[in-house]
Amino acid sequence: MRRTTGTQNMDLEEILRERAKTFDRALNGNLATREPVRIYEAIRWIPLSGGKRLRPILTMLSCEAVGGVPESTIPLGIALEYLHNATLIHDDIIDKDRWRRGLQTTHERFGVPYAIIAGDALVGETYRMLSYMAPPELRSVTYKEIIRSIADAAKSFYEGEALDIEFMDRTNVTIPEYMIMIEKKTSQLYKIACKCGGLIGKGSREQVEALTEYGTLFGLMFQIKDDLLNLVPHQSRLGKQSIGSDIPNGKRTLMLIHAFIQANPRQRRTLVSIVGNEKATQAMVLKAIDLLRDLGSLSYAEQLLTEYRDKAMRCLDVLKASQSKDLLAALADYSITRGY
Amino acid sequence: MRRTTGTQNMDLEEILRERAKTFDRALNGNLATREPVRIYEAIRWIPLSGGKRLRPILTMLSCEAVGGVPESTIPLGIALEYLHNATLIHDDIIDKDRWRRGLQTTHERFGVPYAIIAGDALVGETYRMLSYMAPPELRSVTYKEIIRSIADAAKSFYEGEALDIEFMDRTNVTIPEYMIMIEKKTSQLYKIACKCGGLIGKGSREQVEALTEYGTLFGLMFQIKDDLLNLVPHQSRLGKQSIGSDIPNGKRTLMLIHAFIQANPRQRRTLVSIVGNEKATQAMVLKAIDLLRDLGSLSYAEQLLTEYRDKAMRCLDVLKASQSKDLLAALADYSITRGY
Repeated sequence: MRRTTGTQNMDLEEILRERAKTFDRALNGNLATREPVRIYEAIRWIPLSGGKRLRPILTMLSCEAVGGVPESTIPLGIALEYLHNATLIHDDIIDKDRWRRGLQTTHERFGVPYAIIAGDALVGETYRMLSYMAPPELRSVTYKEIIRSIADAAKSFYEGEALDIEFMDRTNVTIPEYMIMIEKKTSQLYKIACKCGGLIGKGSREQVEALTEYGTLFGLMFQIKDDLLNLVPHQSRLGKQSIGSDIPNGKRTLMLIHAFIQANPRQRRTLVSIVGNEKATQAMVLKAIDLLRDLGSLSYAEQLLTEYRDKAMRCLDVLKASQSKDLLAALADYSITRGY
Repeated sequence: MRRTTGTQNMDLEEILRERAKTFDRALNGNLATREPVRIYEAIRWIPLSGGKRLRPILTMLSCEAVGGVPESTIPLGIALEYLHNATLIHDDIIDKDRWRRGLQTTHERFGVPYAIIAGDALVGETYRMLSYMAPPELRSVTYKEIIRSIADAAKSFYEGEALDIEFMDRTNVTIPEYMIMIEKKTSQLYKIACKCGGLIGKGSREQVEALTEYGTLFGLMFQIKDDLLNLVPHQSRLGKQSIGSDIPNGKRTLMLIHAFIQANPRQRRTLVSIVGNEKATQAMVLKAIDLLRDLGSLSYAEQLLTEYRDKAMRCLDVLKASQSKDLLAALADYSITRGY
C-alpha cells in the first residue's frame, strides 16, 4: 500500500499550520469581546491561545476525501473546536491544572465561577454554530444524525472523564478498561470529526463508516503517543529540562498499566513509591521510566501504535486517490511519529 | 377581559402536579443509572429531586393553545428540564450553596469534579434529546430555529450569570441593569419554552411572537415574586422560623436596588450594614425589610408584577378560546399570587 504518495516531500506540519488559519480566523471573529466583557474574555482565553485545530482539519479532509465541498464543513469544524475547548477549560478545573499552552488556565486567570460559565458558554456555542449550517446543504435526517453524533460524543466524553477520575485511586486498572476510557474521553471528538466530514460530503455509508473507524484510531494513537512523549526528556517552554510529569501526577497511562501487570512484587513496590508521589525527584522519575522500559511497557505501546497506524491506513482504502486521502494517511503516520 | 374562566374552580396546583407526572416519568426513565455508576448518580441527583416542571408544562400548553398535538412537545420539554437542571448544578457550585430542594447540592454530595461533569453531561443530554424529535413532525427550518433558540437562550443565561456575579460587588446597580440581568438569567428558558411550544404546534408567526412575549414576562414575574417571598417570614422545611436569606447573602433583588436608589444617606448606611452581612441577626434582617417597606420598594415590586401580569394576559388575546389558554392565564396569575 502506498502511504504518503504526494505528501512525502511536503512539510506536513506546514500544511497543517496553513489549514489551521481558516479556523483561527473564524474563531477570532466569532469570539469577539462584548458586554459583559469579563465573561467574554474568559470564553476567548483558551480557544484563542493556539492549538493545532486537528479536529476541524480532519473534518474538512474527510469531506474532501469523499468528494464534498470543504468549505461546507467550516461551521461544524468551529463547533468541534468550541466543544473541545469547553472540555479543556472544565478539565483544567477538575485536575487543578495551572498552565495550558504556556498560559494560565482559565480558572487560574479568571476564577472558578467564570471558568465554569466559560466552559458552559462554549458548549452552548457549539450547538448555536450547528444551527447555522445552511438548510440546502443537508437533508434534515443527516442534520439530526450530526447533532446526535455530537451529543453522543459529548456523553461518552463525560463517561470517560468519570472513569479517569475513578482510575486515579486504583492500581489494578486493566488494559481493556483503559482503552475504553481513552476511547470515550479522547477518541470521540476525532471520531465524529471524521464521521461528520464524511456525512457532510455525502459519502457512501461504507465510506462514512471507514472514516469513523479511522477517526477513532487516530484519537487512540494521539493519546498514547502524547503519553509516550511525556516520558521523553525535553526542554520546557521556560527552557528548563523537563520530564515525565505524568509519573509524579500518578496519571494512569497505557505504559503504566502494562508495567503494573508485568511487575514482580519488588518492582511493583518501586513503582508504587514513585508513581503519584508529587515529591518524587527527577532521578526517581527516571528510575521509574527505566523500569517501564525493562518491563517492555514502552515497546508494547510502540508496537500497538504501529498496528493502529496500519489499521487506520487500511480504513482509507475505500476512498478514491486524492490529495486529501494522502493527507489523511500522512496524518495517521504523523500521529505516531511526531516529536515535541 | 376574562381572566381565569373555566379554571376558577380548578385547583391549579393539582393540575400542575398532574401534568408534571408525564415529565417525571420520562426523566426517571431516561436518567437510569448505568456504568460508570457514580457519574450517573450525580447526573440524576437534582433532576429527580422534584421541581415543578413548569418549563415543559408551558411548552405543552403553548403547543396545545395554537392547536398542536401536546405529546409532540415531550422531547423538547425534557430537553428544557435537562438544561435548567444543568444550570442549577453549576450555579450551586458558583454560589457555594449547600442545599437545594431539601437535599445536599450535587457538589456537596459528590464533590466539585463530579458536579462539573454532571452539569456538562445534562447540557449534552439536552441536545441529544432534541435529536430525537421525529423528522415528520417538523420542517428542517423549524427544527434549526428550535436548536438556535435554545442555544441562544443558553448564551443569554451565561451572560446573565456573569452580570449577576458582577453585581454582587456593586451597590449602584440600576433597575434597567437588573431587569436585563434577570431577563437573561431567568426569563430565557421560560421564553423559549413558550416560543418552541408555539413553533412545534405550528402556530402563526403572530401567535409564536405573543407566546414568546408571554414566556418572557412569566420568567420576570416568577423571579421577582420569588425574591418577594424570600422577605416573608415562613416555616422552613426543618420547621424553623426562617426569613430573608437574600438580605444577609447580599443578593441584588429588584426591591433592594429600588431601596438603594430611594434611601437617604442615613438609611443607606443602615442598609449597607445589614445587606451582605452574613452575621446579621434576625432582628437586623427584619429592620432591613421594614426599611424596604418604608421606602416603597415592596409596593413598587408588587405594582410592577400586576402590570406584567396584565401584559402577559393581553398576549394571550391572539389565541382562540381553549382550556390551555385558560391555564396559561391562570398560570400568569399564579406566578404573582402564589405563596410558600
